[in-house]
Amino acid sequence: MTVTRFETNARMSQAVVHGDTIYLAGQVGDPAHDFAGQMQDVLGSIDRLLAQHGSDKTKILAATIYITDLANLGAMNAAWEAWMPKGCGPARATVKADLVAPEYIIEIAVIAAK
Amino acid sequence: MTVTRFETNARMSQAVVHGDTIYLAGQVGDPAHDFAGQMQDVLGSIDRLLAQHGSDKTKILAATIYITDLANLGAMNAAWEAWMPKGCGPARATVKADLVAPEYIIEIAVIAAK
Amino acid sequence: MTVTRFETNARMSQAVVHGDTIYLAGQVGDPAHDFAGQMQDVLGSIDRLLAQHGSDKTKILAATIYITDLANLGAMNAAWEAWMPKGCGPARATVKADLVAPEYIIEIAVIAAK
Repeated sequence: MTVTRFETNARMSQAVVHGDTIYLAGQVGDPAHDFAGQMQDVLGSIDRLLAQHGSDKTKILAATIYITDLANLGAMNAAWEAWMPKGCGPARATVKADLVAPEYIIEIAVIAAK
Repeated sequence: MTVTRFETNARMSQAVVHGDTIYLAGQVGDPAHDFAGQMQDVLGSIDRLLAQHGSDKTKILAATIYITDLANLGAMNAAWEAWMPKGCGPARATVKADLVAPEYIIEIAVIAAK
Repeated sequence: MTVTRFETNARMSQAVVHGDTIYLAGQVGDPAHDFAGQMQDVLGSIDRLLAQHGSDKTKILAATIYITDLANLGAMNAAWEAWMPKGCGPARATVKADLVAPEYIIEIAVIAAK
Protein backbone atom coordinates (compact mmCIF):
# COMPACT_ATOMS: atom_id res chain seq x y z
CA MET A 1 0.00 0.00 0.00
CA THR A 2 1.27 3.43 -0.83
CA VAL A 3 2.10 6.00 1.84
CA THR A 4 1.52 9.65 1.04
CA ARG A 5 2.37 12.56 3.32
CA PHE A 6 0.90 16.05 3.40
CA GLU A 7 2.04 19.34 4.95
CA THR A 8 5.37 17.77 5.80
CA ASN A 9 8.16 19.67 7.55
CA ALA A 10 11.45 18.47 9.04
CA ARG A 11 9.63 16.95 11.98
CA MET A 12 6.28 15.59 10.95
CA SER A 13 3.41 15.54 8.49
CA GLN A 14 0.00 16.92 9.31
CA ALA A 15 -1.59 13.98 7.47
CA VAL A 16 -0.31 10.60 6.33
CA VAL A 17 -2.44 8.38 4.11
CA HIS A 18 -1.80 4.62 4.07
CA GLY A 19 -4.21 2.75 1.86
CA ASP A 20 -7.67 3.56 3.19
CA THR A 21 -6.45 4.96 6.52
CA ILE A 22 -5.54 8.57 7.30
CA TYR A 23 -3.42 9.46 10.33
CA LEU A 24 -3.50 13.10 11.41
CA ALA A 25 -0.88 14.74 13.58
CA GLY A 26 -2.10 15.85 16.98
CA GLN A 27 -3.89 19.12 16.25
CA VAL A 28 -3.50 22.11 18.52
CA GLY A 29 -5.00 25.57 18.33
CA ASP A 30 -3.70 29.10 18.27
CA PRO A 31 -2.08 29.53 21.69
CA ALA A 32 -3.42 33.08 21.83
CA HIS A 33 -6.95 31.70 21.95
CA ASP A 34 -8.88 30.67 25.04
CA PHE A 35 -10.11 27.11 25.49
CA ALA A 36 -13.22 27.53 23.33
CA GLY A 37 -11.13 29.14 20.62
CA GLN A 38 -8.41 26.49 20.68
CA MET A 39 -11.04 23.78 20.55
CA GLN A 40 -12.64 25.35 17.48
CA ASP A 41 -9.19 25.68 15.92
CA VAL A 42 -8.54 21.98 16.51
CA LEU A 43 -11.89 20.86 15.10
CA GLY A 44 -11.45 23.18 12.12
CA SER A 45 -7.99 21.75 11.43
CA ILE A 46 -9.34 18.21 11.53
CA ASP A 47 -12.10 19.20 9.09
CA ARG A 48 -9.61 20.88 6.77
CA LEU A 49 -7.08 18.04 6.78
CA LEU A 50 -9.68 15.33 6.26
CA ALA A 51 -11.31 17.29 3.43
CA GLN A 52 -7.98 17.33 1.58
CA HIS A 53 -8.14 13.55 1.35
CA GLY A 54 -11.75 13.01 0.45
CA SER A 55 -12.67 12.23 4.03
CA ASP A 56 -14.61 14.11 6.68
CA LYS A 57 -15.60 13.99 10.33
CA THR A 58 -18.18 11.26 9.71
CA LYS A 59 -15.29 8.90 8.95
CA ILE A 60 -13.15 9.30 12.07
CA LEU A 61 -12.23 5.90 13.46
CA ALA A 62 -10.37 6.79 16.64
CA ALA A 63 -9.56 9.97 18.51
CA THR A 64 -7.17 10.56 21.39
CA ILE A 65 -7.91 13.76 23.28
CA TYR A 66 -5.27 15.33 25.51
CA ILE A 67 -6.62 18.04 27.79
CA THR A 68 -4.48 19.94 30.26
CA ASP A 69 -7.17 21.09 32.70
CA LEU A 70 -10.23 19.04 33.61
CA ALA A 71 -12.08 22.30 34.28
CA ASN A 72 -12.37 22.49 30.48
CA LEU A 73 -13.75 18.97 30.07
CA GLY A 74 -17.39 20.03 29.87
CA ALA A 75 -16.61 22.71 27.29
CA MET A 76 -14.56 20.20 25.28
CA ASN A 77 -17.35 17.66 25.22
CA ALA A 78 -20.00 20.27 24.37
CA ALA A 79 -17.96 21.57 21.44
CA TRP A 80 -17.17 18.04 20.30
CA GLU A 81 -20.81 16.95 20.39
CA ALA A 82 -21.97 20.08 18.58
CA TRP A 83 -19.43 19.33 15.84
CA MET A 84 -19.88 15.58 15.52
CA PRO A 85 -22.82 14.43 13.36
CA LYS A 86 -25.24 12.12 15.14
CA GLY A 87 -24.15 8.48 14.96
CA CYS A 88 -20.61 9.20 13.78
CA GLY A 89 -18.63 9.26 17.02
CA PRO A 90 -15.25 7.50 16.88
CA ALA A 91 -13.62 5.26 19.44
CA ARG A 92 -12.35 7.91 21.82
CA ALA A 93 -9.90 8.09 24.71
CA THR A 94 -9.49 11.23 26.80
CA VAL A 95 -6.59 11.80 29.16
CA LYS A 96 -5.32 14.70 31.19
CA ALA A 97 -1.83 15.59 30.03
CA ASP A 98 0.27 18.66 29.62
CA LEU A 99 1.29 19.52 26.08
CA VAL A 100 4.51 20.89 24.59
CA ALA A 101 4.03 24.37 26.04
CA PRO A 102 1.69 25.65 28.75
CA GLU A 103 -0.26 27.86 26.34
CA TYR A 104 -1.52 24.82 24.46
CA ILE A 105 -4.48 23.43 26.40
CA ILE A 106 -6.11 20.93 24.05
CA GLU A 107 -4.69 18.50 21.48
CA ILE A 108 -6.58 15.89 19.47
CA ALA A 109 -5.03 13.15 17.34
CA VAL A 110 -7.30 11.20 15.00
CA ILE A 111 -7.21 8.21 12.70
CA ALA A 112 -9.84 8.31 9.94
CA ALA A 113 -11.04 6.30 6.99
CA LYS A 114 -10.51 7.65 3.52
CA MET B 1 -13.56 -0.15 3.15
CA THR B 2 -16.73 0.12 5.16
CA VAL B 3 -16.84 1.75 8.60
CA THR B 4 -19.28 0.39 11.15
CA ARG B 5 -19.86 1.82 14.61
CA PHE B 6 -21.21 0.09 17.71
CA GLU B 7 -22.61 1.36 21.01
CA THR B 8 -22.61 4.90 19.64
CA ASN B 9 -23.78 7.90 21.63
CA ALA B 10 -23.53 11.64 20.92
CA ARG B 11 -19.84 11.60 21.76
CA MET B 12 -18.25 8.36 20.71
CA SER B 13 -18.60 4.72 19.77
CA GLN B 14 -17.35 1.92 21.98
CA ALA B 15 -16.13 0.07 18.88
CA VAL B 16 -15.47 1.11 15.29
CA VAL B 17 -14.69 -1.49 12.65
CA HIS B 18 -12.79 -0.46 9.50
CA GLY B 19 -12.09 -3.34 7.20
CA ASP B 20 -10.14 -5.86 9.25
CA THR B 21 -9.27 -3.44 12.06
CA ILE B 22 -11.29 -2.76 15.22
CA TYR B 23 -10.74 0.39 17.26
CA LEU B 24 -12.12 0.34 20.80
CA ALA B 25 -12.80 3.43 22.88
CA GLY B 26 -10.62 3.77 25.94
CA GLN B 27 -12.25 1.44 28.46
CA VAL B 28 -12.68 2.43 32.08
CA GLY B 29 -14.19 0.56 34.99
CA ASP B 30 -16.89 1.20 37.52
CA PRO B 31 -15.58 4.16 39.54
CA ALA B 32 -16.98 2.58 42.71
CA HIS B 33 -14.50 -0.28 42.31
CA ASP B 34 -10.96 -0.41 43.64
CA PHE B 35 -8.01 -0.80 41.29
CA ALA B 36 -8.32 -4.57 40.97
CA GLY B 37 -12.02 -4.23 40.30
CA GLN B 38 -11.64 -1.46 37.72
CA MET B 39 -8.92 -3.46 35.96
CA GLN B 40 -11.21 -6.49 35.73
CA ASP B 41 -13.99 -4.24 34.47
CA VAL B 42 -11.71 -2.91 31.75
CA LEU B 43 -10.49 -6.35 30.67
CA GLY B 44 -14.05 -7.65 30.70
CA SER B 45 -15.23 -4.75 28.53
CA ILE B 46 -12.45 -5.41 26.02
CA ASP B 47 -13.45 -9.08 25.90
CA ARG B 48 -17.10 -8.20 25.45
CA LEU B 49 -16.55 -5.61 22.72
CA LEU B 50 -14.14 -7.77 20.74
CA ALA B 51 -16.46 -10.77 20.96
CA GLN B 52 -19.22 -8.71 19.32
CA HIS B 53 -17.07 -8.44 16.21
CA GLY B 54 -15.74 -11.95 15.92
CA SER B 55 -12.47 -11.01 17.55
CA ASP B 56 -10.94 -11.73 20.93
CA LYS B 57 -7.97 -10.89 23.14
CA THR B 58 -5.61 -13.06 21.08
CA LYS B 59 -6.02 -10.58 18.22
CA ILE B 60 -5.13 -7.32 19.95
CA LEU B 61 -2.59 -5.42 17.88
CA ALA B 62 -1.82 -2.43 20.07
CA ALA B 63 -2.80 -1.27 23.55
CA THR B 64 -2.27 2.09 25.23
CA ILE B 65 -2.57 1.89 29.00
CA TYR B 66 -3.17 5.03 31.04
CA ILE B 67 -2.64 4.54 34.76
CA THR B 68 -3.07 7.30 37.31
CA ASP B 69 -0.91 5.93 40.13
CA LEU B 70 2.28 3.95 39.60
CA ALA B 71 1.62 2.20 42.91
CA ASN B 72 -0.91 0.15 40.91
CA LEU B 73 1.52 -0.77 38.13
CA GLY B 74 2.38 -4.20 39.53
CA ALA B 75 -1.29 -5.06 40.03
CA MET B 76 -2.06 -3.86 36.50
CA ASN B 77 0.64 -5.99 34.95
CA ALA B 78 -0.29 -9.06 37.02
CA ALA B 79 -3.94 -8.82 36.00
CA TRP B 80 -2.97 -8.18 32.39
CA GLU B 81 -0.64 -11.17 32.24
CA ALA B 82 -3.19 -13.47 33.90
CA TRP B 83 -5.72 -12.38 31.26
CA MET B 84 -3.50 -12.45 28.17
CA PRO B 85 -2.97 -15.87 26.57
CA LYS B 86 0.66 -16.84 26.19
CA GLY B 87 2.20 -15.49 22.99
CA CYS B 88 -0.59 -13.02 22.22
CA GLY B 89 0.67 -9.80 23.78
CA PRO B 90 0.12 -6.68 21.68
CA ALA B 91 2.43 -3.76 21.07
CA ARG B 92 1.88 -1.90 24.32
CA ALA B 93 2.64 1.57 25.69
CA THR B 94 2.00 2.47 29.31
CA VAL B 95 1.96 6.03 30.59
CA LYS B 96 1.04 7.70 33.84
CA ALA B 97 -1.82 10.10 33.23
CA ASP B 98 -4.86 11.34 35.04
CA LEU B 99 -8.20 10.48 33.50
CA VAL B 100 -11.44 12.43 33.12
CA ALA B 101 -12.32 12.21 36.81
CA PRO B 102 -10.21 11.24 39.83
CA GLU B 103 -12.27 8.13 40.57
CA TYR B 104 -11.16 6.56 37.29
CA ILE B 105 -7.72 5.06 37.86
CA ILE B 106 -7.08 2.86 34.82
CA GLU B 107 -8.01 3.23 31.14
CA ILE B 108 -6.98 1.00 28.26
CA ALA B 109 -7.48 1.74 24.55
CA VAL B 110 -6.88 -1.07 22.07
CA ILE B 111 -6.70 -1.67 18.35
CA ALA B 112 -7.45 -5.27 17.33
CA ALA B 113 -7.70 -7.42 14.24
CA LYS B 114 -11.07 -8.74 13.22
CA MET C 1 -5.34 -10.56 7.35
CA THR C 2 -2.73 -12.43 9.32
CA VAL C 3 -1.35 -11.13 12.61
CA THR C 4 2.27 -11.91 13.46
CA ARG C 5 4.00 -11.01 16.70
CA PHE C 6 7.71 -10.52 17.38
CA GLU C 7 9.79 -10.40 20.55
CA THR C 8 6.79 -11.48 22.56
CA ASN C 9 6.87 -11.99 26.32
CA ALA C 10 4.07 -12.60 28.84
CA ARG C 11 3.01 -8.98 28.62
CA MET C 12 3.51 -7.64 25.13
CA SER C 13 5.19 -7.89 21.77
CA GLN C 14 7.77 -5.41 20.58
CA ALA C 15 6.25 -5.54 17.09
CA VAL C 16 2.92 -6.75 15.73
CA VAL C 17 2.34 -6.96 11.99
CA HIS C 18 -1.23 -6.88 10.65
CA GLY C 19 -1.39 -6.95 6.88
CA ASP C 20 0.62 -3.96 5.72
CA THR C 21 0.69 -2.21 9.09
CA ILE C 22 3.29 -2.61 11.84
CA TYR C 23 2.56 -1.59 15.42
CA LEU C 24 5.59 -1.16 17.68
CA ALA C 25 5.47 -1.21 21.46
CA GLY C 26 6.35 2.07 23.11
CA GLN C 27 10.14 2.12 23.01
CA VAL C 28 12.18 3.30 25.97
CA GLY C 29 15.91 3.57 26.45
CA ASP C 30 18.44 2.29 28.93
CA PRO C 31 17.45 3.98 32.19
CA ALA C 32 21.14 4.42 33.02
CA HIS C 33 21.48 6.80 30.06
CA ASP C 34 20.85 10.53 30.07
CA PHE C 35 18.19 12.08 27.86
CA ALA C 36 20.34 12.15 24.73
CA GLY C 37 21.34 8.54 25.30
CA GLN C 38 17.80 7.33 25.93
CA MET C 39 16.61 9.17 22.83
CA GLN C 40 19.26 7.46 20.71
CA ASP C 41 18.31 4.13 22.29
CA VAL C 42 14.68 4.70 21.34
CA LEU C 43 15.44 5.73 17.77
CA GLY C 44 17.82 2.80 17.40
CA SER C 45 15.18 0.38 18.68
CA ILE C 46 12.65 1.73 16.20
CA ASP C 47 15.18 1.29 13.38
CA ARG C 48 15.99 -2.24 14.49
CA LEU C 49 12.38 -3.37 14.88
CA LEU C 50 11.25 -1.88 11.58
CA ALA C 51 14.21 -3.43 9.75
CA GLN C 52 13.13 -6.87 10.95
CA HIS C 53 9.92 -6.45 8.96
CA GLY C 54 11.22 -4.97 5.75
CA SER C 55 10.28 -1.47 6.85
CA ASP C 56 12.30 1.54 7.94
CA LYS C 57 11.96 5.04 9.34
CA THR C 58 10.82 6.44 5.98
CA LYS C 59 7.61 4.43 6.39
CA ILE C 60 6.44 5.59 9.82
CA LEU C 61 2.79 6.59 9.66
CA ALA C 62 2.15 7.89 13.16
CA ALA C 63 4.23 8.49 16.28
CA THR C 64 3.15 9.29 19.81
CA ILE C 65 5.93 10.80 21.88
CA TYR C 66 5.71 10.80 25.67
CA ILE C 67 8.26 13.06 27.34
CA THR C 68 8.52 13.49 31.09
CA ASP C 69 10.27 16.86 31.22
CA LEU C 70 9.67 19.68 28.75
CA ALA C 71 13.22 20.87 29.40
CA ASN C 72 14.21 17.99 27.08
CA LEU C 73 11.83 18.97 24.29
CA GLY C 74 14.41 20.82 22.23
CA ALA C 75 16.89 17.94 22.50
CA MET C 76 14.16 15.49 21.55
CA ASN C 77 13.17 17.43 18.46
CA ALA C 78 16.80 17.99 17.40
CA ALA C 79 17.59 14.25 17.68
CA TRP C 80 14.36 13.36 15.92
CA GLU C 81 15.00 15.74 13.02
CA ALA C 82 18.59 14.57 12.63
CA TRP C 83 17.31 10.98 12.42
CA MET C 84 14.28 11.50 10.18
CA PRO C 85 14.98 11.67 6.43
CA LYS C 86 13.70 14.81 4.76
CA GLY C 87 10.06 14.50 3.73
CA CYS C 88 9.33 11.37 5.74
CA GLY C 89 7.91 12.77 8.98
CA PRO C 90 4.89 10.89 10.35
CA ALA C 91 1.74 12.25 11.89
CA ARG C 92 3.05 13.04 15.35
CA ALA C 93 1.58 13.87 18.76
CA THR C 94 3.76 14.88 21.68
CA VAL C 95 2.53 14.95 25.26
CA LYS C 96 4.13 15.43 28.64
CA ALA C 97 3.57 12.31 30.71
CA ASP C 98 5.41 10.34 33.31
CA LEU C 99 6.37 6.81 32.36
CA VAL C 100 6.40 3.54 34.28
CA ALA C 101 9.40 4.51 36.41
CA PRO C 102 11.07 7.89 37.00
CA GLU C 103 14.31 6.83 35.32
CA TYR C 104 12.55 6.51 31.98
CA ILE C 105 12.30 9.98 30.48
CA ILE C 106 11.28 9.41 26.86
CA GLU C 107 8.99 6.85 25.19
CA ILE C 108 7.92 6.71 21.56
CA ALA C 109 5.20 4.46 20.11
CA VAL C 110 4.95 4.19 16.33
CA ILE C 111 2.72 2.71 13.66
CA ALA C 112 4.51 2.07 10.36
CA ALA C 113 3.80 0.70 6.92
CA LYS C 114 5.42 -2.54 5.89
